[in-house]
Amino acid sequence: MYPKKELAQIVISACSQFNIDTVVISPGSRNAPLTVGFSNHPEINALSVVDERCAAFFALGIAQQTQKPVAIICTSGSALLNYYPAIAEAFYSNIPLVVISADRPKHLIDIGDGQTIRQENVFDNHILFAANLIENEKFKTRNSQLIGEALQIAVSQKGPVHINVPFDEPLYETVEEMQTFNFPHISLSSLDNSHIDYGNLSKIWNTAEKKMILVGVNYPDADLHKLMDLYAEDESVLILTETTSNLHQEKSVNSIDQLIFSLDDKQFEDLKPEVLITFGGMIVSKKIKQFLRKYPPKQHWNIDEKKAVNTFFCLSEFIQIKPLDFFSKFNRTIIKKESNYQQKWLKIRDEKRIKHQEYLSRATHSDFKVFEQVVESVPTNSQLQISNSSIIRYAQLFSIDKTNTVFCNRGTSGIDGSTSTAIGAAFANKNQTVFITGDISFFYDSNALWNTNIPKNFRIILINNAGGGIFKIIPGPGTTNAARYFETPHTLTAEHLCKMYELDYLKADSIETVTAQLQGFYETSEKPKILEIFTPSEENDLILSAYFKYIQ
Amino acid sequence: MYPKKELAQIVISACSQFNIDTVVISPGSRNAPLTVGFSNHPEINALSVVDERCAAFFALGIAQQTQKPVAIICTSGSALLNYYPAIAEAFYSNIPLVVISADRPKHLIDIGDGQTIRQENVFDNHILFAANLIENEKFKTRNSQLIGEALQIAVSQKGPVHINVPFDEPLYETVEEMQTFNFPHISLSSLDNSHIDYGNLSKIWNTAEKKMILVGVNYPDADLHKLMDLYAEDESVLILTETTSNLHQEKSVNSIDQLIFSLDDKQFEDLKPEVLITFGGMIVSKKIKQFLRKYPPKQHWNIDEKKAVNTFFCLSEFIQIKPLDFFSKFNRTIIKKESNYQQKWLKIRDEKRIKHQEYLSRATHSDFKVFEQVVESVPTNSQLQISNSSIIRYAQLFSIDKTNTVFCNRGTSGIDGSTSTAIGAAFANKNQTVFITGDISFFYDSNALWNTNIPKNFRIILINNAGGGIFKIIPGPGTTNAARYFETPHTLTAEHLCKMYELDYLKADSIETVTAQLQGFYETSEKPKILEIFTPSEENDLILSAYFKYIQ
Repeated sequence: MYPKKELAQIVISACSQFNIDTVVISPGSRNAPLTVGFSNHPEINALSVVDERCAAFFALGIAQQTQKPVAIICTSGSALLNYYPAIAEAFYSNIPLVVISADRPKHLIDIGDGQTIRQENVFDNHILFAANLIENEKFKTRNSQLIGEALQIAVSQKGPVHINVPFDEPLYETVEEMQTFNFPHISLSSLDNSHIDYGNLSKIWNTAEKKMILVGVNYPDADLHKLMDLYAEDESVLILTETTSNLHQEKSVNSIDQLIFSLDDKQFEDLKPEVLITFGGMIVSKKIKQFLRKYPPKQHWNIDEKKAVNTFFCLSEFIQIKPLDFFSKFNRTIIKKESNYQQKWLKIRDEKRIKHQEYLSRATHSDFKVFEQVVESVPTNSQLQISNSSIIRYAQLFSIDKTNTVFCNRGTSGIDGSTSTAIGAAFANKNQTVFITGDISFFYDSNALWNTNIPKNFRIILINNAGGGIFKIIPGPGTTNAARYFETPHTLTAEHLCKMYELDYLKADSIETVTAQLQGFYETSEKPKILEIFTPSEENDLILSAYFKYIQ
Repeated sequence: MYPKKELAQIVISACSQFNIDTVVISPGSRNAPLTVGFSNHPEINALSVVDERCAAFFALGIAQQTQKPVAIICTSGSALLNYYPAIAEAFYSNIPLVVISADRPKHLIDIGDGQTIRQENVFDNHILFAANLIENEKFKTRNSQLIGEALQIAVSQKGPVHINVPFDEPLYETVEEMQTFNFPHISLSSLDNSHIDYGNLSKIWNTAEKKMILVGVNYPDADLHKLMDLYAEDESVLILTETTSNLHQEKSVNSIDQLIFSLDDKQFEDLKPEVLITFGGMIVSKKIKQFLRKYPPKQHWNIDEKKAVNTFFCLSEFIQIKPLDFFSKFNRTIIKKESNYQQKWLKIRDEKRIKHQEYLSRATHSDFKVFEQVVESVPTNSQLQISNSSIIRYAQLFSIDKTNTVFCNRGTSGIDGSTSTAIGAAFANKNQTVFITGDISFFYDSNALWNTNIPKNFRIILINNAGGGIFKIIPGPGTTNAARYFETPHTLTAEHLCKMYELDYLKADSIETVTAQLQGFYETSEKPKILEIFTPSEENDLILSAYFKYIQ
């Protein structure tokens, strides 16, 4: 059973030919031709999620894991506006998200019909391409071209595109067979990298005694990992990896804040590299940004396939190429340089690590202490999804097992869809997925749990400190008399939501109960599980600031 | 304690001078100068709501009731995108909503900083004005002008405006006193109505024997109500009022669908007016739209202060004036006309009403029957808030007590913020507020309950038919094999949410239990209350379609 509407058939054919195998549909009537067509397509898995905000983040999580486009489909009106937070995240995180919104035909817009807004180009600020279709035989070729272009761009440029599909009534007529539509196979020119002057770059590199490689959000990649080993073995190179970098060289700094939090000017001057190479997405550590802005290296090379990001206002070379391709070539042109740079800083790193352990061994129950227990508990080969705000910042202080992959919505760093994204990622990945989240972020996205596709092995660790813990950690809010508007304290728990959405619920509120509840937490179960860990909101920030003092 | 930042002081001063007395703040750091300033302002009530989607609809509900602008304040990044559904609703419902988003300064955008998107003009398609401020002493005058213009437009044109306020760090510095900023008092020219040719209009009106007045969404207005009495007493005029019109002439048709659902071509021809006057906002009834599009009157006059809405594609006169002002003058120029038009159709109305009662008296427990019980139970002088989709369509079939006011988000007809809007409206209105909602809409906006400002006398009647009942009622979804993607069936109940958010929870699942639970339901209580009424999803649509057959 397929939609009679040719325009719907074209959209569905195009998605299929561009290898979209998963669509997330939110209910509505205007999108009926798409709903009927996608849900009956033998090669497309059609999932249903009601709240469009969650639907979009759920799809984002799937696309994050598969690195293939996922389509989200909704009805006309305000429905699609609820997609916007996830679209912005996809835009900044380079995730292919294909937004397909049903619309009324143009003559029914702004004349008083229900569920009708101005949908064309509505995501203008954060979309790679907007295909505004017209349901009319005359525009068949134009429509096909626009759809093809949108999908091509989503795949090749990795990001969100919007296909707006107006349908006149009747909406529910069906036919037995879909027509076949063929979309031209597009062979896009690849980037011409021949202009990259490896000779000159290596000349600079080979003479410098202090070189830093800083890696932000980065997909796990064994080949890239191997290429980076060369730098780990070079005394003149210090590798700094963020938790989201999915790189695990032993000779690297994987807890940046732990290392640099309390350095003085002299030490910063000493740490300042001559050459800085950056690749990967957003950097979480505020400290490293402040440091590199204040102590800019002579050379900053940013390696990225898409665009230059001048995070430290001292960019000297933007090298447009995949990091893997860059290092494949660059590695052959460089030589190791004698230097005490790496050794010196790894020694400091090791001292901090020892202090870190000492402090932890005496730390009382708190957000900080919980992190140690949780990070240690996560089974090998798991996928870790981490929510934003204080959670990702705590995570940066701990070493994650190298068999675990780490993801966090750092494109916009929003708290608005972390749970939905994690559920999408869990759905798309057979490995154990463990989602660590804070309370404000969790309750914000509580509708994420309204999803019948949550795998049984999905685990949520909810660290509930009864408000926005970040506002106790950062300096500022406490100095005002408006703290409650920042922290938004509450007494909510996840217990009732678990009953509502049928998840197993466990709770803990001390070191001992956390340990006890983590026993068996990851074992096979009939339902997904949440472990809610209550921490003392009045002590968390003190324990964290004492930590930074201790490791000085 | 006030923000040291002058730009924040200017924004706050302007809001105060434009009589904004309520702001809804969502937590964040970038908006700290605004949070500190607004929350300390002696004449401004600062409310805190975490989820920006709910915050915006909550503010919309307040502004809907007070008919004064309400400001919503959020941090930078994806936060403000969550405002968009409510902004679109405000845009189409003519509600003054002042969006104030904190932002990073321009040089920190798209360079890899966290919580950073392209905020300027991001609501372009649905905003009356966007003030993109710049934090710089040089731009002080320009900033003030833009802020003043935005607020002036929100008030005079009644709709959403966006003020984007970039702040550089430090964000938390405070001072003891705010400076005084003066904004020019703007005397906008009012509309010049002298060109309205009442003489010609009344000439047409006075000779026509069949005239129809159709009223959509309309604020309660005793003066307007009185002016309409003249038409109710004119045999040649048939007044059709939608449930959201807040008009209650006895000689009018207040259940449009009940009257016209099953008319045949001959009857429609007979019902077709020579002159149609429309005023008010969106029309819910699809049937009346279909009728007037198929049987267009010779003359269609749309009376609106803002813009022409050519809903039936036959608009002959757009008269730009407040309906109250129009009828004040027009009433003096017209004479009653002998005709059997009104009488004939009121007779049919009365026959349908009798059948309606007959059918109801035998109807079994169902969405339809529940409506009778609920509508009758609502105390006099209450405010009724009604959610979208099937609920507002059911409501259109019942006579609401004339002391009750009725509101529904018909601007975009979205299900996304009905509960939050109702809570805002309840907060702003001392009268009893009763919110009638369906299950999908209710669970969609469940975060609405995460709000410490819900008044104790707030009452929710949740009609839970275990899925999107609208998709069983409208023809179409049932003919496909994809029904579950439309109805999105579920087994959720509000019980756990009530425990979580500390509301009293009652439930019913039969005529008798509904009656019993409604006893005392509106009495003073310590907590807001929800009555969840479970109805049989497999029977609701049959009972409704049998109803329409019965009243034929």
